[in-house]
Amino acid sequence: MKTTIIVDKKNTTKTEKNTKPAKNAIKKVANTKATKPVIADKKYVANITALLKNFPQWYTDIVLKTELCDYGPVKGTMVIRPYGFALWENIKNALDKSLKAHEYQNAYFPMLIPSSFIEKEKEHVAGFAPELATVTHVGAEALPEKLYIRPTSETMIGNMLAKWLQSYKELPMKLNQWCNAVRWEKTTRPFLRTSEFLWHEAHAVFADAKSAKKNALDDLYLYENFMRNYLALPVLIGQKSEKEKFAGAEITYGVEAMMKDGKSLQVGTSHYLGQNFSKSFNIKFQDDQKLSRYAYTTSVGTSTRLIGAIVMTHGDDRGLVLPPRVAPIQVIIVPVAQHKPGVLNVAENIKRTLTNLHYRVAIDDSDNTPGWKFNQWEMKGVPVRIEVGPRDIENNECQISRRDTLTKTTIKLNQIERYVADLLENIQQTMLVTAMQNRDKHIKRVKTFPELKKAINAGNFVLAPWCNCTECEEAIKTETNGVSTRVMPFDSALEKNSVCVHCGKPAKVEIIFAKAY
Amino acid sequence: MKTTIIVDKKNTTKTEKNTKPAKNAIKKVANTKATKPVIADKKYVANITALLKNFPQWYTDIVLKTELCDYGPVKGTMVIRPYGFALWENIKNALDKSLKAHEYQNAYFPMLIPSSFIEKEKEHVAGFAPELATVTHVGAEALPEKLYIRPTSETMIGNMLAKWLQSYKELPMKLNQWCNAVRWEKTTRPFLRTSEFLWHEAHAVFADAKSAKKNALDDLYLYENFMRNYLALPVLIGQKSEKEKFAGAEITYGVEAMMKDGKSLQVGTSHYLGQNFSKSFNIKFQDDQKLSRYAYTTSVGTSTRLIGAIVMTHGDDRGLVLPPRVAPIQVIIVPVAQHKPGVLNVAENIKRTLTNLHYRVAIDDSDNTPGWKFNQWEMKGVPVRIEVGPRDIENNECQISRRDTLTKTTIKLNQIERYVADLLENIQQTMLVTAMQNRDKHIKRVKTFPELKKAINAGNFVLAPWCNCTECEEAIKTETNGVSTRVMPFDSALEKNSVCVHCGKPAKVEIIFAKAY
Repeated sequence: MKTTIIVDKKNTTKTEKNTKPAKNAIKKVANTKATKPVIADKKYVANITALLKNFPQWYTDIVLKTELCDYGPVKGTMVIRPYGFALWENIKNALDKSLKAHEYQNAYFPMLIPSSFIEKEKEHVAGFAPELATVTHVGAEALPEKLYIRPTSETMIGNMLAKWLQSYKELPMKLNQWCNAVRWEKTTRPFLRTSEFLWHEAHAVFADAKSAKKNALDDLYLYENFMRNYLALPVLIGQKSEKEKFAGAEITYGVEAMMKDGKSLQVGTSHYLGQNFSKSFNIKFQDDQKLSRYAYTTSVGTSTRLIGAIVMTHGDDRGLVLPPRVAPIQVIIVPVAQHKPGVLNVAENIKRTLTNLHYRVAIDDSDNTPGWKFNQWEMKGVPVRIEVGPRDIENNECQISRRDTLTKTTIKLNQIERYVADLLENIQQTMLVTAMQNRDKHIKRVKTFPELKKAINAGNFVLAPWCNCTECEEAIKTETNGVSTRVMPFDSALEKNSVCVHCGKPAKVEIIFAKAY
Repeated sequence: MKTTIIVDKKNTTKTEKNTKPAKNAIKKVANTKATKPVIADKKYVANITALLKNFPQWYTDIVLKTELCDYGPVKGTMVIRPYGFALWENIKNALDKSLKAHEYQNAYFPMLIPSSFIEKEKEHVAGFAPELATVTHVGAEALPEKLYIRPTSETMIGNMLAKWLQSYKELPMKLNQWCNAVRWEKTTRPFLRTSEFLWHEAHAVFADAKSAKKNALDDLYLYENFMRNYLALPVLIGQKSEKEKFAGAEITYGVEAMMKDGKSLQVGTSHYLGQNFSKSFNIKFQDDQKLSRYAYTTSVGTSTRLIGAIVMTHGDDRGLVLPPRVAPIQVIIVPVAQHKPGVLNVAENIKRTLTNLHYRVAIDDSDNTPGWKFNQWEMKGVPVRIEVGPRDIENNECQISRRDTLTKTTIKLNQIERYVADLLENIQQTMLVTAMQNRDKHIKRVKTFPELKKAINAGNFVLAPWCNCTECEEAIKTETNGVSTRVMPFDSALEKNSVCVHCGKPAKVEIIFAKAY
């Protein structure tokens, strides 16, 4: 069967504020008739490894079997297949709107960076050198200078900004690009870490440190709101430790999402770069006193890794569970006994009605059995399924199932528009609430190192007082087989006189520890 | 001054048929009051070389001074600046809709192609080898196999299709990607030919030759319609000669646009690849008799070169002239005596009114003089300018100028909505008609070689009978210092017994000759 994947170009930009889950919407839908459990047709469930049995294998099964992606021919590379790409397009379109609302302008910078650029910023090159894919030849000819495929574009963009920027009147200057980037890492995994990935990187220039710092924080909140509201990811934000910060940054803020195995996935970072890149690349402007001054810069980026975060936050043993706002197909219509007169007509009418309301809708009129189709579209994570057969039509009804809770309701055909609108909103909010409850259940406040180890081994994040020293951080990582600091939450309340969870010295901050992807 | 560039996400997909210019729309606008010429403020015109004086320099001046692009640090590379990128986004969004309407699904394939892939298709590698940027190392380590940055993705996609394709039921399979590509060419020019460029490449697979051939033609017509209707480019289409076809294709169809200097710019190609790539990459399917068969494939692509085509088809001595359907800003509002009470309010009201109708509108409330602003936005090619000052407000009027004809009209404020709607449509159609008239004036039918040379030297395309032999084609190229065959139009009427314009042998086809970029 062929299903065209629908990408939402009209994804309305919702308020950027943290919206609390709409409890009313949840009630409204819950009250329409009693729901009954979906009849699972076990034999049709594709061979997906059980989530609790082997989480990494469960993840791999899902991303491959739902055709989000496939492995590329070169080690560490990935093909994003149409279903995965439609999801990415919906994510991209929504995030692009938010960035434009924050006055970022899109542009495109060359991918090949002269090696001398990368080497200009010492910490930057130290951080990226081992991962740089290097172009040395064109055809049979050696290039005069070797070129690196961008791992990130601070240096390339810095070089251009230095050329363009003249006066303080042009500031702030805010540029964004959607592009590919290459970081050749040893251990790779579809979406989570691939040699080549797709992302956006936004770069901004300011006249003073205060405005630049504020922008790095604004961008962090932009991410938090976008990921909560569109992807139903209840992310944690805060400042990164010295060790974990970006190569070349003064301050790095991180966005961390808790996966269902209790590990953290860093889904975005926002950097205050101070004058590091301005000084390396000579990004200067004339101030209102006609004095030449170095600018202050920031950068912020997130990638196709977000798809991995959606899979591992919301997925279950049946497959994907996609947030309605970015799902490639929001409503799948499955006609039952589709050869009987009128069935396909009614299915088409429902599709037309919902498409006119700008929902992304498809009909599965393939030759497969309804049972096969139910399982197929559950695996694909489509938020809402509508079944309609001859008996339903006789009663002017249809059956509506929701993917997140796997419950089913009978609805009058003339109530579909209103019901689907409420239901999609309800699913979006319920997914966020469910993920938030799971997250909160798995954040443990501890004070001692044995408690920390125990809590993390049981699949939790840990919030603990910490001395804020790199040596201590490295010792913890070694002694725990990979636990790292994630972020220092802004709303932490460090108790007076508390001591570091590991070294016992006075604690300077509270920080989240976790195993991470 | 900072102006946010607005990108149209809601570009309504117009009919895909060739729409004849709406003559009524043209009349409607022409009839509203007498127009008077815009008063040119010569001293403000930026230093753009006169078009007739030095066309290449005129082109370079325009693309740099309007900030469409800038040179990148590596020879042959280009930065697409926000104004240029907003134009590209509008082009991309509209073309993406057309491709989706033709059932192409977007995906993303890895950029780095194993060298063995490229070498599998003999003609393909012969065509691309000298231009291939080659990755040999990552960090300090040599890669086991050298990788090429994609010059195009037939081989990468072919390799994946071979893995995915099982049954005839999955056919046709139609995939598209928007990405960067690298072809390291000796002579480069912004947008026209850059080492790295942005493009889309769409690849399709069919069970039989007939369907694949039809698809290659359908895609060609899709381009023709898109370029006419959105970019006001009256392109010429037809089949390419053997010599000019794509490396690895059976048939290449070309889309050629006439630039104002009489040279041709190839703005798109559509290829019927037969079984060449299927056989090299083993793209097979099981037919309805359960027999394994090689598939037939096609590919089609166009790039950021389209921006160059827009510049060189519509631009003039004042700068860019952008087609309304893709212009980043469709209407620029210039307040006159903006410090006077009420002026900025009225400007804001006009902006709100037009923005609500989904037009892309900006106000220039910078400190520059109105004269400077007029010239600035003329140079930027904004289709419509609205001026409003204290006297206009007193009379409930504003002044509306159109960029294409440089004429100005006085309009009542309450007529703006209707007038702007008509005017934008009128400009779009007028630009197409003007370009078409220019094109038709510069296509000469000739029968002899001296006539051919004379016509081409005078800045024309030539349509001539031809023997369809590569040797003859190469001789013509040498003897004319670079005249090449462009396309064999489908509607040509080759006269009986005509002879080749060059070698005098019996003519097999009519073909267009031109100098080309």
